[in-house]
Amino acid sequence: MPAPNLLYAQSGGVTATINASAAAVIETARKFPARIGQVLAARNGIIGVLREELIDTGLESAEAIRGLRHTPGGAFGSCRFKLKSLDQDRAHYERVIEVCRAHDIRYFLYNGGNDSADTTHKLSQVAQTLGYELHCIGVPKTIDNDLALTDVCPGFGSVAKYVAVSTREASLDVLSMAESSTKVFVLEVMGRHAGWIAAAAGLAGSKDGDPPHIILFPEVPFDQVRFLAAVKDAVGRFGYCTVVVSEGVKDAKGRFLAEAGTRDAFGHVQLGGAGPAIAEMVRAAHGYKYHWAVSDYLQRSARHIASKTDLDISMKVGVAAVKLALAGRNAVMPIVKRLASRPYRYAIVTAELADIANHERKLPAEYIRADGFGITAAAREYLDALIQGEAYPPYVNGLPDYVSLNNRLIEGRLPKYKV
Amino acid sequence: MPAPNLLYAQSGGVTATINASAAAVIETARKFPARIGQVLAARNGIIGVLREELIDTGLESAEAIRGLRHTPGGAFGSCRFKLKSLDQDRAHYERVIEVCRAHDIRYFLYNGGNDSADTTHKLSQVAQTLGYELHCIGVPKTIDNDLALTDVCPGFGSVAKYVAVSTREASLDVLSMAESSTKVFVLEVMGRHAGWIAAAAGLAGSKDGDPPHIILFPEVPFDQVRFLAAVKDAVGRFGYCTVVVSEGVKDAKGRFLAEAGTRDAFGHVQLGGAGPAIAEMVRAAHGYKYHWAVSDYLQRSARHIASKTDLDISMKVGVAAVKLALAGRNAVMPIVKRLASRPYRYAIVTAELADIANHERKLPAEYIRADGFGITAAAREYLDALIQGEAYPPYVNGLPDYVSLNNRLIEGRLPKYKV
Repeated sequence: MPAPNLLYAQSGGVTATINASAAAVIETARKFPARIGQVLAARNGIIGVLREELIDTGLESAEAIRGLRHTPGGAFGSCRFKLKSLDQDRAHYERVIEVCRAHDIRYFLYNGGNDSADTTHKLSQVAQTLGYELHCIGVPKTIDNDLALTDVCPGFGSVAKYVAVSTREASLDVLSMAESSTKVFVLEVMGRHAGWIAAAAGLAGSKDGDPPHIILFPEVPFDQVRFLAAVKDAVGRFGYCTVVVSEGVKDAKGRFLAEAGTRDAFGHVQLGGAGPAIAEMVRAAHGYKYHWAVSDYLQRSARHIASKTDLDISMKVGVAAVKLALAGRNAVMPIVKRLASRPYRYAIVTAELADIANHERKLPAEYIRADGFGITAAAREYLDALIQGEAYPPYVNGLPDYVSLNNRLIEGRLPKYKV
Repeated sequence: MPAPNLLYAQSGGVTATINASAAAVIETARKFPARIGQVLAARNGIIGVLREELIDTGLESAEAIRGLRHTPGGAFGSCRFKLKSLDQDRAHYERVIEVCRAHDIRYFLYNGGNDSADTTHKLSQVAQTLGYELHCIGVPKTIDNDLALTDVCPGFGSVAKYVAVSTREASLDVLSMAESSTKVFVLEVMGRHAGWIAAAAGLAGSKDGDPPHIILFPEVPFDQVRFLAAVKDAVGRFGYCTVVVSEGVKDAKGRFLAEAGTRDAFGHVQLGGAGPAIAEMVRAAHGYKYHWAVSDYLQRSARHIASKTDLDISMKVGVAAVKLALAGRNAVMPIVKRLASRPYRYAIVTAELADIANHERKLPAEYIRADGFGITAAAREYLDALIQGEAYPPYVNGLPDYVSLNNRLIEGRLPKYKV
């Protein structure tokens, strides 16, 4: 009897290092040919599972898979497609099991954030109900850093590093010119609900007066009067002011500073524009010349400046996920446990998906400075562990040599299923 | 009699490598103690000269000066302060000469773009009129890449590399998610009058279908109907569309797509917002989910991903400028002459400032693809030479170890002068 197959899928917003987890999953699975047959990957995440669009990663060379370690984006495609409750979406869940059964898939590894942990958990329940043995393992990933229990979410350390580096660099630019040109620079960063990424910008400076002078967190209701006073104070004291604003900043009434007005597939409001909104506010009040940047996808795809620590973690959770599957575990996720901060030491441990799914980890109040505009020493200790080390991709002809896979689908065995 | 002094000043928008030119100027000048006394630097460019705010770089260690090679921004401060014609601003020009005379400055090295080349040229004329021997040498620098005669402007290669890398990375992100999420990604880049930086984004792809699918140049009047059709075509063929738009894009009537409404000290309109304007246009017409990024100062300060070729050129023009000064030259600028493209070979040669000042080098028509939305093979050959090689800064604790100088002023000898 041939060994059963493994299915790996990517979910939600991609990161600079999610493909490193994919590489680790595939490379580890290939080491156990007696126990794992085909290593399949879903095209575009769970959508590809539902559509029975399964990629045979066995057709990719070892070199191409190794290349995933340094390639951003999601090499097999990811998706924003949330499976709802078992009651509402039972047909989808059962279809997933049907696809697994049709292809003798006994290991399902789902690489994502909160929603994906929930889906993976529910799938394990449905499989059990249907009497189909399926080892459902979560592989953590999200730049939002909002998964419960784990010390950090793979992908976050790299966006943190990008944002800290960019804040430091752009601030040197502004400082140079402030006497006769731009006095206020605003950088908008991601973070719909939590200020983890905005907080990371705080690493750019280390002593009083260093930028960023003001960080605006989603956790702190925006107070225009206090903010404008803080900008004026910084310009007065340092000659310029760097502001880092999370896209998710809301006023006291809970309204986003800027809404693009559209919603994504999960029903989340699509944000964008807090940066220019803040900049315009400063101009109107103080008349300072300003500039603003919105780093958007650049921040989460910036594999060229990925954190080595993040990369290592991303690979280790991939390895651990396969080992958990082979150990017969189900409805679990390998997570990171911090052992020490300086230098950072951690272990990969195992958590129940039930304890992770649908819990959101917030930025602790003690990470936000008393004035609401900066980070504390505790935040710095937590964060700076995560950006340690550089992990440059190889370059060819002046550009990073990112791989692209063949992504050949295996033949379908089931009737079409519309998603 | 002590050796006469040298004054170095930075002007206009700073770059990732202008400090490398500064390092080269100072290090080279230090090698000729018998011929050059103090190496002074103006605080905040020409403003500092007028105010007699002169930094004694002799108080900076060799290590700190070497650190400028890998530090973005302008270490002595730069400015947007344009000296107008000799008739209009004669007092300013004469004050500069007075300051030089008061401090026995016989070498004036001005590191900037077009306006600075003009100022340097005029200063040499004023000095001559006043019978003061002053060797005025331009040191080229501008991310706009619009200086005449030189093959490339120091600073441009690094922003070109940043934009090409970022376009490649963000596009991998969008491609991963396009099935169920963002289909159109818009990156706004700098380039008020010329599309050099936008063109560099074209290096991100090398074959049909590679991003960026559409580049919008200031040189091509924006045609909304054709643009929207091109977006739809790309999404149809590739599943997504990456658009790179220059901040300077104008419609057929010469109106900017987006104006921030303010003007800088040179009277230039302060732009920003072409990216979101384009993105909104796409949403309104096609309903695609979109994201946009505005890289703004991040692109010109991104020393972490500087081009090694650009860095080398930036240092070589600094060395050459000092040697020209010592050779008794006046009103000249060291520039880059291309000898071969693949691999890139170049020589530093000398141009007359009179031939450079106030000439703007445009993006050649033959660098823009016939449909107006991409670059040609000729552009690619020109551009890819300039992004070759990486020149990573040293890192400490996960962040680039950028230097900051003491910038101690020497004592003034003249009455105050109001600027």
